[in-house]
Amino acid sequence: MPRKRAGGDSDDLSTRRGTLNEARWEAILGAAAEEFNERGYRAARLQDIAQRVGLLTGSLYYYIDSKEDLLYALAQSSLQLGLATTIEDEPLANSDAATRLHAFIQRQMQIMDRLRGPAGGIGRDLASLSPDHRQQVDSMRRQLHSFVRRIIEQGMKDGDFDPTVDAGVATNTLFELLNTTRQWVKPGRLSLSEIGDWYARLLLGGLVLRESFGRLPSSM
Amino acid sequence: MPRKRAGGDSDDLSTRRGTLNEARWEAILGAAAEEFNERGYRAARLQDIAQRVGLLTGSLYYYIDSKEDLLYALAQSSLQLGLATTIEDEPLANSDAATRLHAFIQRQMQIMDRLRGPAGGIGRDLASLSPDHRQQVDSMRRQLHSFVRRIIEQGMKDGDFDPTVDAGVATNTLFELLNTTRQWVKPGRLSLSEIGDWYARLLLGGLVLRESFGRLPSSM
Repeated sequence: MPRKRAGGDSDDLSTRRGTLNEARWEAILGAAAEEFNERGYRAARLQDIAQRVGLLTGSLYYYIDSKEDLLYALAQSSLQLGLATTIEDEPLANSDAATRLHAFIQRQMQIMDRLRGPAGGIGRDLASLSPDHRQQVDSMRRQLHSFVRRIIEQGMKDGDFDPTVDAGVATNTLFELLNTTRQWVKPGRLSLSEIGDWYARLLLGGLVLRESFGRLPSSM
Repeated sequence: MPRKRAGGDSDDLSTRRGTLNEARWEAILGAAAEEFNERGYRAARLQDIAQRVGLLTGSLYYYIDSKEDLLYALAQSSLQLGLATTIEDEPLANSDAATRLHAFIQRQMQIMDRLRGPAGGIGRDLASLSPDHRQQVDSMRRQLHSFVRRIIEQGMKDGDFDPTVDAGVATNTLFELLNTTRQWVKPGRLSLSEIGDWYARLLLGGLVLRESFGRLPSSM
């Protein structure tokens, strides 16, 4: 259903554009992502986004009310993909924390090519979202972070991970690594899956109980 | 010496503004950093930067030719601070790789409060630098990255670190962690020094030879 008839349902962009051209909407989102990444969200202009997909600026208004709708749709789509990676089958859900973390990291690496929010995460542009949209995005981010944090806490409870580590900081660390990957990764060197193995090794290396280390200097 | 008389010496902003008001220049840089962080470099306006320090926009032109000069000066100042952290006294320079990495990370945490480039690093705004300035900044970044990479390679050569790790990827990882710290760190939780210890633990946990690990799942 076009935006103009959506009435109060302003937070569900996917319902709103149900009867519009889905392929064109995807193209618009792709163009917005490129424009935001190249120029930054604030400097990006709707007319340049429209031009990238061969539309008149006016035609964009069948899909959105404002540039901010595009930022929100991109953030929402990335976070929906992200939250899908928290789904575990039963054997995995019953595995130890290290196995679950490693599997989560690999599932995150698998969606990386499809993420369209700003590389480096949406943190910097969050302030540009309307209060409603920001609340939605924040809540999805919290859900994603909680998933990792609970795994880390499970590992501490099970005696696999060092309970003196700050689980919140460890969680932030992982998401900073994941979110910045697209900024520096170059095709043809390491695969995303190999980088995922490295992140898992790094994070688990930081989390496992100190007694497991033989070679760290005593000052550590 | 004011910008207008600098002639061909356009890459050395510090010489150029030698006879100008140094405190005011620092205030201008601080205001530019805030404006760039809040609005993004491209959307930031010189008149807003001038207003933050109580100057007319025209007065900024005693110090700079363009907004790009401010981005360059900020990047240069952050990288100069960064490069200063690669200076080691003789005992440290002769220490093992783990000790040197840990010390480097802690020195990086110590300068974090004084960094004024965009939080998250200058990667996203690099494309906005003029070719000359970009080359300068790239060369300083390469110097900083090489320092870490050489330490990691030393550790591999000495048999402390796993030689199958990609030293370049490990180096990038560390700088992504360092550069994104200012985006999420909140005062009063962990100190910067404690976060530095965590980063060192994480990185060394990822680098040390696999035989040192007792608790990692076999799939790792």
